[in-house]
Amino acid sequence: MSATAGSRGRRTESELVADVRSAVLEELAEVGVGRLTMEGVAKRAATAKTSLYRHWGTPHDILLDALEHEFPQEPVSPNSDNLREDLIRSLRLMTEWLATPTARAVASIISEQARYPELTRAVYANIFDAKGGRFTRTVLSHYAEHGWFSAELVTPVVADIGEALVLKHALDAGALPDADVLAAIVDQAILPAVGVAAPAGSRHAEET
Amino acid sequence: MSATAGSRGRRTESELVADVRSAVLEELAEVGVGRLTMEGVAKRAATAKTSLYRHWGTPHDILLDALEHEFPQEPVSPNSDNLREDLIRSLRLMTEWLATPTARAVASIISEQARYPELTRAVYANIFDAKGGRFTRTVLSHYAEHGWFSAELVTPVVADIGEALVLKHALDAGALPDADVLAAIVDQAILPAVGVAAPAGSRHAEET
Repeated sequence: MSATAGSRGRRTESELVADVRSAVLEELAEVGVGRLTMEGVAKRAATAKTSLYRHWGTPHDILLDALEHEFPQEPVSPNSDNLREDLIRSLRLMTEWLATPTARAVASIISEQARYPELTRAVYANIFDAKGGRFTRTVLSHYAEHGWFSAELVTPVVADIGEALVLKHALDAGALPDADVLAAIVDQAILPAVGVAAPAGSRHAEET
Repeated sequence: MSATAGSRGRRTESELVADVRSAVLEELAEVGVGRLTMEGVAKRAATAKTSLYRHWGTPHDILLDALEHEFPQEPVSPNSDNLREDLIRSLRLMTEWLATPTARAVASIISEQARYPELTRAVYANIFDAKGGRFTRTVLSHYAEHGWFSAELVTPVVADIGEALVLKHALDAGALPDADVLAAIVDQAILPAVGVAAPAGSRHAEET
């Protein structure tokens, strides 16, 4: 981080890159997409503009690089024997990511998508799509390949059910969904959409 | 609307109320939740503050009244013989509402929910919950009562699938979902969650 840069002497190139990635997210949170500049990022990372230009051409390049670097990729269990747990884990990964500065940066870009359409397109193409498109898509596609259900069932709508319900819950409740809500989303919405039965009793979990 | 108020002479009380409801939404769009005042609304509605106080105690009262008045209630078909069409119709009603100034006002309140928790709670309690909680909930509950599926399946998560996917699509695409997307949401996500089969072929509609 920039605050410690001075105390540890000369940074390696990879330390500098890490500091600049942190700096661009801090700068974005403070000044917004429209006022992000190479000067501002360089100053916050305690480096020279020329150092930035060795790696990136524009402030948006730095921002996209930082977002891409911090975005998680959901894992699938090697034995492919627990679709339900893998889906819950992928949504938990999403909720953990939503609590990070990276997610807040993405939210602020998307909320201004009308003003910055190219930046928004790049966020979707380089980050979301590059990492599987949706947090549950990699898991669903993996289990479809292993014969749990037809790959035709993994439509854009079905791959989006988990993310949509997590975001909706966060919007309505003003807080990220807990483990019970994530399990309910998987059992009551995602598993039925691919024709897989949820564990007995789980569909009424919220009522009992 | 305030612009025409002067040209048609003295307004009736119900015309005044309608003008004030429009005015508070315009004022909100221009100044934001935090700077909404009785003075500002009165000026925009071309009336006196004393006229406002005959109906409302605070600017937030006016705002909630306007939002409540403009919020639609989804219909159910009297014969209860077409769950799929009624669900599509309820989501179409939602997308039509999302294009109105009322929806933009609600979005701006929810986006500032940390700053105005009471106003946000009132939006949910007086408007969303009072009108059935979710755009598809009234339809789902109605068909459950008529024996199409168990009422226990209409959980908070299941009632939220439609709204969540409509909002997610709007967020990702930067545009409201069209008729094909609404049908896909109903066929691929909502109907499976209540164990009702979608029409043959409809689940792959987006791929063909």
